[in-house]
Amino acid sequence: MTHRITPELSAELRGVAHSLADAARPVTLQYFRTAVAADNKGALRGMAYDPVTIADRASEQAMRDILARLRPDDAILGEEFGPKAGTTGLTWVLDPIDGTRAYIAGAPTWGVLIAVSDDQGPLFGIVDQPYIGERFAGGFGQAECAGPHGTRALQTHAPRALAEAIVMTTFPEVGTPTEGAAFQAVAARAQLVRYGMDCYAYAMLAAGQIDLVIEAGLQPYDVQGPIAVIEAAGGIVTDWQGGPAWQGGRILAAANPQIHAEALAILSTAS
Amino acid sequence: MTHRITPELSAELRGVAHSLADAARPVTLQYFRTAVAADNKGALRGMAYDPVTIADRASEQAMRDILARLRPDDAILGEEFGPKAGTTGLTWVLDPIDGTRAYIAGAPTWGVLIAVSDDQGPLFGIVDQPYIGERFAGGFGQAECAGPHGTRALQTHAPRALAEAIVMTTFPEVGTPTEGAAFQAVAARAQLVRYGMDCYAYAMLAAGQIDLVIEAGLQPYDVQGPIAVIEAAGGIVTDWQGGPAWQGGRILAAANPQIHAEALAILSTAS
Repeated sequence: MTHRITPELSAELRGVAHSLADAARPVTLQYFRTAVAADNKGALRGMAYDPVTIADRASEQAMRDILARLRPDDAILGEEFGPKAGTTGLTWVLDPIDGTRAYIAGAPTWGVLIAVSDDQGPLFGIVDQPYIGERFAGGFGQAECAGPHGTRALQTHAPRALAEAIVMTTFPEVGTPTEGAAFQAVAARAQLVRYGMDCYAYAMLAAGQIDLVIEAGLQPYDVQGPIAVIEAAGGIVTDWQGGPAWQGGRILAAANPQIHAEALAILSTAS
Repeated sequence: MTHRITPELSAELRGVAHSLADAARPVTLQYFRTAVAADNKGALRGMAYDPVTIADRASEQAMRDILARLRPDDAILGEEFGPKAGTTGLTWVLDPIDGTRAYIAGAPTWGVLIAVSDDQGPLFGIVDQPYIGERFAGGFGQAECAGPHGTRALQTHAPRALAEAIVMTTFPEVGTPTEGAAFQAVAARAQLVRYGMDCYAYAMLAAGQIDLVIEAGLQPYDVQGPIAVIEAAGGIVTDWQGGPAWQGGRILAAANPQIHAEALAILSTAS
């Protein structure tokens, strides 16, 4: 389906996206750094440690309540409550707390991820960090960060060689052993590698601070908000073969086409 | 030298410490997320990648200027300008930007570390995160965090088994291969391991969010501020043999004596 986005519609969607992020802030903060957030009991899904807190579900519910009122005919894909069909060709893609491990550890690197997408991928996205009070938003010709020290435009870093670049990923093992080895093949040639930033790594890429984020095993709701922000700031996000990344999987997010090509050449042969 | 701390002196020292942190905030923020902070040229010391920015030196100088005025007879040990002798038995231990790698990457996990110490170790300390606007302070019977959402008392986590615990360190390799293996021996038995938090990890320990921080190769100015905050919040910090940690080296910071003992039993035999 081709979806025609008028200026009026883009303004409306942008406003709704910010309303969702506004609604998620108090809900996620209500439980951040409290006992409930650190209570891991009952949070295990199968073998993996995957803490899901009350805050996750309450945050997504708050956003869904707004969509039911303002955009009832759009589809929704959320981490906690699954897909809801729509009729407009637009889908709201929600991760109410990306980085729940960071959240229970008290680290301000988790975020609320919001995207509105059509069948070609995300149109507008938000990466919101409620504790810092910092919001990265991009799409419809706009890319900016509003934070505790004011609002500034987002612009990815200018090209520099991989040997001078900063690379981020969340977990040192990245994914499978093959995926981990492919990541390390890139990391070994970089100036600096940093771990543990969750979705905040994508925000730092959009802000021009770092050059690459490389991850694997992501879900659509983990990447669509970041993709919109990064692309609006001048960056490029693909999978490890150079194809579309917005359905998740293996992610290569880059500040510019040059560093993207340098990393892709390594990842595509190593994985 | 035994140094007698009167209530008047402790109030004065606490006030001076906060003045130092106040002074470092605008200086460190002036360069944060700007081109100068990300300029790695000339920042290499020998073989290691050790970025030292203008902000590091300006931040320490701002704090030294205050000490020259308010506490001219105390000694100073700072990362950037080295030791200055004193006559009072008190030493100000300053790390103007702990986590310069995080700083140049834009991540809000760096901090300004301040301690005032005597020959028995730190008496009062501060871990300040200027971008978030968050200050963890502890000593002289006080332990609190003042941040964007108010001020609260700091209290470390109650005892729970290592299998339920959250462990942090900054670099996955930790230190030497032996040190890395010792860390992994603890990490493998924990519920959750997180990387990349720099000094913010110690703040999260003091705040009751996590159970252990384990690092190696630290300098006195990397640990004395955190030690004061953690001990004031109910935690315990030693080296990997259970001895004093305030001179740096291998650090085991724990939320309570029980989890400290469990981790120490592993580290002391593995290293």
